[in-house]
Amino acid sequence: MSKDKRPCDFTIFGVLGDLSRRKLFPALYQLDRAGLLHDDTRVIGVARHKISQDEFIATIRQSLDTFITGPLEQEVVERLLARLIYVLINLDAPGEYHALCEIIDQKQRVLINYFAVAPSLFDDICAGLARADIVTPQARVVMEKPIGRDLASSEEINDVIGRVFNEDQIYRIDHYLGKETVMNLLALRFANSIFTANWDHNTIDHVQITVAEQVGIEGRWGYFDQAGQLRDMVQNHLMQILTLVAMEPPVNLRGDSLHNEKIKVLKALRPITMENIEDKVVRGQYNSGFIKGKAVPGYLDEKGGNPHSSTETFVAIRVDIDNWRWADVPFYLRTGKAMATKRSEVVINFKQQPHNIFADSYRHLPPNKLIIRLQPDEGVEIEMLNKEPGIGEGVRLQRTMLDLSFSEAFANERIADAYERLILEIMRGSQVLFVHRDEVKRSWTWIDSIQEAWAQCGEPPRPYPAGSWGPVASVALLAKDGREWEE
Amino acid sequence: MSKDKRPCDFTIFGVLGDLSRRKLFPALYQLDRAGLLHDDTRVIGVARHKISQDEFIATIRQSLDTFITGPLEQEVVERLLARLIYVLINLDAPGEYHALCEIIDQKQRVLINYFAVAPSLFDDICAGLARADIVTPQARVVMEKPIGRDLASSEEINDVIGRVFNEDQIYRIDHYLGKETVMNLLALRFANSIFTANWDHNTIDHVQITVAEQVGIEGRWGYFDQAGQLRDMVQNHLMQILTLVAMEPPVNLRGDSLHNEKIKVLKALRPITMENIEDKVVRGQYNSGFIKGKAVPGYLDEKGGNPHSSTETFVAIRVDIDNWRWADVPFYLRTGKAMATKRSEVVINFKQQPHNIFADSYRHLPPNKLIIRLQPDEGVEIEMLNKEPGIGEGVRLQRTMLDLSFSEAFANERIADAYERLILEIMRGSQVLFVHRDEVKRSWTWIDSIQEAWAQCGEPPRPYPAGSWGPVASVALLAKDGREWEE
Repeated sequence: MSKDKRPCDFTIFGVLGDLSRRKLFPALYQLDRAGLLHDDTRVIGVARHKISQDEFIATIRQSLDTFITGPLEQEVVERLLARLIYVLINLDAPGEYHALCEIIDQKQRVLINYFAVAPSLFDDICAGLARADIVTPQARVVMEKPIGRDLASSEEINDVIGRVFNEDQIYRIDHYLGKETVMNLLALRFANSIFTANWDHNTIDHVQITVAEQVGIEGRWGYFDQAGQLRDMVQNHLMQILTLVAMEPPVNLRGDSLHNEKIKVLKALRPITMENIEDKVVRGQYNSGFIKGKAVPGYLDEKGGNPHSSTETFVAIRVDIDNWRWADVPFYLRTGKAMATKRSEVVINFKQQPHNIFADSYRHLPPNKLIIRLQPDEGVEIEMLNKEPGIGEGVRLQRTMLDLSFSEAFANERIADAYERLILEIMRGSQVLFVHRDEVKRSWTWIDSIQEAWAQCGEPPRPYPAGSWGPVASVALLAKDGREWEE
Repeated sequence: MSKDKRPCDFTIFGVLGDLSRRKLFPALYQLDRAGLLHDDTRVIGVARHKISQDEFIATIRQSLDTFITGPLEQEVVERLLARLIYVLINLDAPGEYHALCEIIDQKQRVLINYFAVAPSLFDDICAGLARADIVTPQARVVMEKPIGRDLASSEEINDVIGRVFNEDQIYRIDHYLGKETVMNLLALRFANSIFTANWDHNTIDHVQITVAEQVGIEGRWGYFDQAGQLRDMVQNHLMQILTLVAMEPPVNLRGDSLHNEKIKVLKALRPITMENIEDKVVRGQYNSGFIKGKAVPGYLDEKGGNPHSSTETFVAIRVDIDNWRWADVPFYLRTGKAMATKRSEVVINFKQQPHNIFADSYRHLPPNKLIIRLQPDEGVEIEMLNKEPGIGEGVRLQRTMLDLSFSEAFANERIADAYERLILEIMRGSQVLFVHRDEVKRSWTWIDSIQEAWAQCGEPPRPYPAGSWGPVASVALLAKDGREWEE
């Protein structure tokens, strides 16, 4: 048995909630199916619902049926269900947690406390766990986003957890870090000398990071309107991608080394304030339009919405990183809802050739690009110039793609869902794919400054039609620097 | 009508010979088919055979039938044949060339004298042309290899031509320069900043150039045994590829600029002499073996052969280029007959990463490679490392290929034969794809030194079985430098 396969008490607080049923149990099923759960690992479900163990098992069985695509292997289902134990606790009653003591066995198993509940409950859960005296130094705790809505509230949440758990016991989830291609950024950057030697202001002109969602708000209006796209997507996912693209080589691949380099990038972000926000940030809000030929209502017309909301559903930002590596190399981020298509990618735009000897046939040599597709169709492309075949006069050039599609290149590999990887890493006790408290702090500090500038300037978001690539101001953001978004 | 399409008198000396029938006429057919010959262009055939114009046309018609694969377009065939004029001249009788005066019309057409005959006849042809007074400064002359068998004999041939034609009228053919992918080397190197920035001793470890032929000698024994693989393949084709890979950026893409840079590389080649030949060169001679499962006789057993010949059919050389760019970056060349497979390629081996943070899962990071496939299946590949998909512990790496196959990428383009391109360039008056006299001189100087060292040391070539990759000493040549041939 592999040394990374240890018996765990995988304890889910809020086990009957959406996250648990949609994401955690399907991931646990896949791990069990792949033989990655120790025989003695148990899944302990905690919730306030008065249901019997049998009813609990029936509910989870149904969740697996609903949320796993493709045929279920009944043998695996039964094996997983046999691991389940339901514990009824009113999560906001710290006195009830002693019920867990009788079940949890930290001599035999690693205790993992997965907080699949709203952060407002974290305090009570932590208090309950502490009072029941089951927080040993080996116990782990898993937190889902959102970790606050600004620096102050995130610090409050982190303080609550930090009073009971040490930082090396805490696993903050950003599910983007569980994606195959996000982790491939490390391999691309640090295992390939053609990129290592080319990864700075000498050879890179600028970087683009796009996370475009095609869906609109669809029922999440209440939550989303309080957050907005900047808090909902940039503060976590886009900042994580940015730090992995921009960071210095880590000493090794352990969590502390990676966290250290990522934090250094966040420290180097040039603040965006009232003074420069107009030059640096575009915020947008979709109105009605068409997505895949289907009419879509505008954000303000969505069910349950406030018709005067100024919450942004799109944001584009020019980020400057004030360090040696990235001097004068902007990172352009953009993310939005109700966009033309669903697409997440990083585009490394290399510098133009200093001199063009092909000017007769190609007036402006397009620079090379490295395109890292995060979704859909994960893969890597290099856009380069080759000679156009043929016997025309001179050397005529043509843009061509060297393409590596993961689904083609690794046809036999099922691409694991982010949660499978993340849960496994928690069980292994590796913090590489999780977010350090200082990262949360630094990125909120930077985001808060933008929010504050927005509040001060009071200008509403710019409208864009659903199904487009955002407000035209987003195009202008790059155009004024002589650049263009990747289409 | 494009300015590069001018009426020519394309005059082939030795029009009934093998080269003319196999290569020149099929190429002229393709050019005519593509509309690249001017309506007034004529093809004047010169030979000593007493045949009528009709018999001549019948012969060429038959050649087209024989040497063009795929269906012929009869309309094109008739158009081409209508351009033909046969002129009977005993090529070694300079007094007979006045017969051309009546036909050639240099007021209307560019005169191209294509010497498709043995170099021993060049003197007589040049004398004949001069005596007939038809060598104007606009006339061009085309020479095929071999241009001598050493520096002295090549200078003799070049002197013969040089007495009548200026260097800017002379087109020395190396048909490798007509290949699509050889010219693509210029585009790759000088249009793509990811390579421009990486093309020297800082980032490249070494370069391999392989030109492997699967066929043996097959009837050419008499000629080949006098030459050997070094003269037959290295002095011309491999040296041309080497100079294109190694040269500094040219000022522009004109012939004189390219020749200048190529000559600079040839000047910088470290000489190979008696003192260092054992460390630098492996020569081999095939004996019997199997190619594609078929028994093949050894070189010494070929029909018409001399059983005591020490002529090499294989050669591998470590070439050092003593300039700033290539300090400590060896170029390994190898070429042979009766090899395991037919393959020509350039492999740029980048340096190993200076530090490996993936040592847990990949002990020795394989360096990146850029592979330029010249034939068969022309294309470009980058071998790099990506993360192996999956949720195994750590970041596991996997070698993957970013692949650009010309036949796939440019599916609608017929890849032109080298002779089509070269003939067209001669008609256009561009010397880019031809070899300058100083290149011939410099490369023979370097080759002669090797030949001399072989003659002095008197050691016979090492045997290798037909259908293999050459003598084991070829493997050792790289192994002692800690390197391996691309397989």
